[in-house]
Amino acid sequence: MAVYTEVSDEALRAFLAAYDLGDLIAFRGIAEGVENSNYALRTGAGDFILTLYEKRVDPADLPWFLALAEHLSAQGLPCPLPVKARDGVALRELAGRPAAVCTFLPGIWPRRPRVAHCGPLGAVLARLHTAGAGIGAVRRNALGLAAWAPLLDRCRAAAVQQRPTGVPGLVAELDAALAELLRDWPAPGALPAGPIHADLFPDNVFFMGSPPEVSGVIDFYFACTDLLAYDVAVCLNAWCFEPDGSFSLAKARALLAAYQALRPLAPAERAALPVLCRGAAMRFLLTRLYDWTATPPGALVTRKDPLEYLGRLRFFRAADGPDALGL
Amino acid sequence: MAVYTEVSDEALRAFLAAYDLGDLIAFRGIAEGVENSNYALRTGAGDFILTLYEKRVDPADLPWFLALAEHLSAQGLPCPLPVKARDGVALRELAGRPAAVCTFLPGIWPRRPRVAHCGPLGAVLARLHTAGAGIGAVRRNALGLAAWAPLLDRCRAAAVQQRPTGVPGLVAELDAALAELLRDWPAPGALPAGPIHADLFPDNVFFMGSPPEVSGVIDFYFACTDLLAYDVAVCLNAWCFEPDGSFSLAKARALLAAYQALRPLAPAERAALPVLCRGAAMRFLLTRLYDWTATPPGALVTRKDPLEYLGRLRFFRAADGPDALGL
Repeated sequence: MAVYTEVSDEALRAFLAAYDLGDLIAFRGIAEGVENSNYALRTGAGDFILTLYEKRVDPADLPWFLALAEHLSAQGLPCPLPVKARDGVALRELAGRPAAVCTFLPGIWPRRPRVAHCGPLGAVLARLHTAGAGIGAVRRNALGLAAWAPLLDRCRAAAVQQRPTGVPGLVAELDAALAELLRDWPAPGALPAGPIHADLFPDNVFFMGSPPEVSGVIDFYFACTDLLAYDVAVCLNAWCFEPDGSFSLAKARALLAAYQALRPLAPAERAALPVLCRGAAMRFLLTRLYDWTATPPGALVTRKDPLEYLGRLRFFRAADGPDALGL
Repeated sequence: MAVYTEVSDEALRAFLAAYDLGDLIAFRGIAEGVENSNYALRTGAGDFILTLYEKRVDPADLPWFLALAEHLSAQGLPCPLPVKARDGVALRELAGRPAAVCTFLPGIWPRRPRVAHCGPLGAVLARLHTAGAGIGAVRRNALGLAAWAPLLDRCRAAAVQQRPTGVPGLVAELDAALAELLRDWPAPGALPAGPIHADLFPDNVFFMGSPPEVSGVIDFYFACTDLLAYDVAVCLNAWCFEPDGSFSLAKARALLAAYQALRPLAPAERAALPVLCRGAAMRFLLTRLYDWTATPPGALVTRKDPLEYLGRLRFFRAADGPDALGL
């Protein structure tokens, strides 16, 4: 639900005058995306998405994000292509915010992912990792392993005393899980690294047709340079659990088989998958817990449930090796 | 910012199977509209808006709203046309909500209305009133004169004691203004009545081109049968004040001249315009005040400022006859 910044028609017209996009036909706020303001923009040249980057995105990272999307598009990945204005510049300013126009991608994100979505997802993730290999510049994962201890500290007091969870011993459990992660995490250089999406949830993947095929991968604003297999672990967390919290081996197998058909995991990656899955569960648990404790009780915003990821963390801590995850 | 109900892809496909709209191409939530969930829907047949009617709309009113939109469309007014499924029925059900598909209208609503918007607005309002004359069925205005005293009572305690306003004597001022309205309001039958939009704010009118022309009038979910000149009074409130709260005689004159070129106000309507403007200010002041007092203090939702309409009410109470309003 995201339109944080209103754009006046005069400002929009002045902004678009820098582009060769023809006449302005329509302009509507989009109720998707959490971090930025997104507008559906229609001009004589077609359909586009106009994004205004809000506070939670560091402007210094934007050139990296846009270069990544441009590189992946050029490699044939269906991701939004930043549109350059006549001066060749894609990253501009509108209503006091950094802003960019990107191509519109057709398709629908699956509200209830099925096994049939997980194969195409695995394939597009492998293509993303393969295509991304050519990118030289790196961006540190601001929500990676090193960020988790400080994040846990920031919600420690709230998590111990009160809402949101009502789970006895939650902090001790997270401390123990985090200690294990710090102990077991792959050493630098041990696994292949490169650009990863790092947030490839169902609402960031569009599908069309039956059986579903991927028509778009969007929202690269958590993308970073990190372990490729960690991106697989994020997807196992985000796509392979049923609404009742149970792990779907069928979804995981479909995802992993399609991924490995294009990019086989190395033995060290396969061995590390369980700890990477625990790490991904920890990352989303902690950011949700933080958002939860940082939001006032009566607020009418949708806060994602951190406990969903406590369930996943527990599942992955108890899982008996890579086989239990569908490998 | 309105997507209250999520629609699963399976449910959407099953819903669309009843229509002749071709393949599903895209489906995105729209961050506009406050009362209902709105989705931009693209199919092989073109672009549409899918609306799911949420709690604040009475399902019993929906056939009237859809019939009005269909009637106005048939008269050439640029408003969303409800699309019928193969069985001839436009009002259906999706995700447990009443739902309808309507045609998409191009254009952009003006974030900062200018004088140049107010002429085309006045003209389309007159066309709406003229075209609406053929509708036989009536719908009572649930937020009309008779609703204001109960509404004021419901926020009386909050308005006296505490937030939101901090305005001393607010309740006494509103009581006095309401007593005047009840005393001065036109007697039944004294002024022409018919279908009115009743909520024609800038975000409900799309414009295209330069100079701007109206390309769409949307959101008929407050529409009702009431005094036509009251709709003019709503527009004077909603379009003819500057951001600093001052009344723009230039905007009002542009609106009224264009309106009267198509539908001249009768002498009794002209004479009643000041009291109708006070009434419209009271209506939006009260509903905003109610929303404000009914929302918890820490909530992160956007509540429209009731004091904006206190300023308008005071302006209209002090205004010296119809001339001061641009007539």
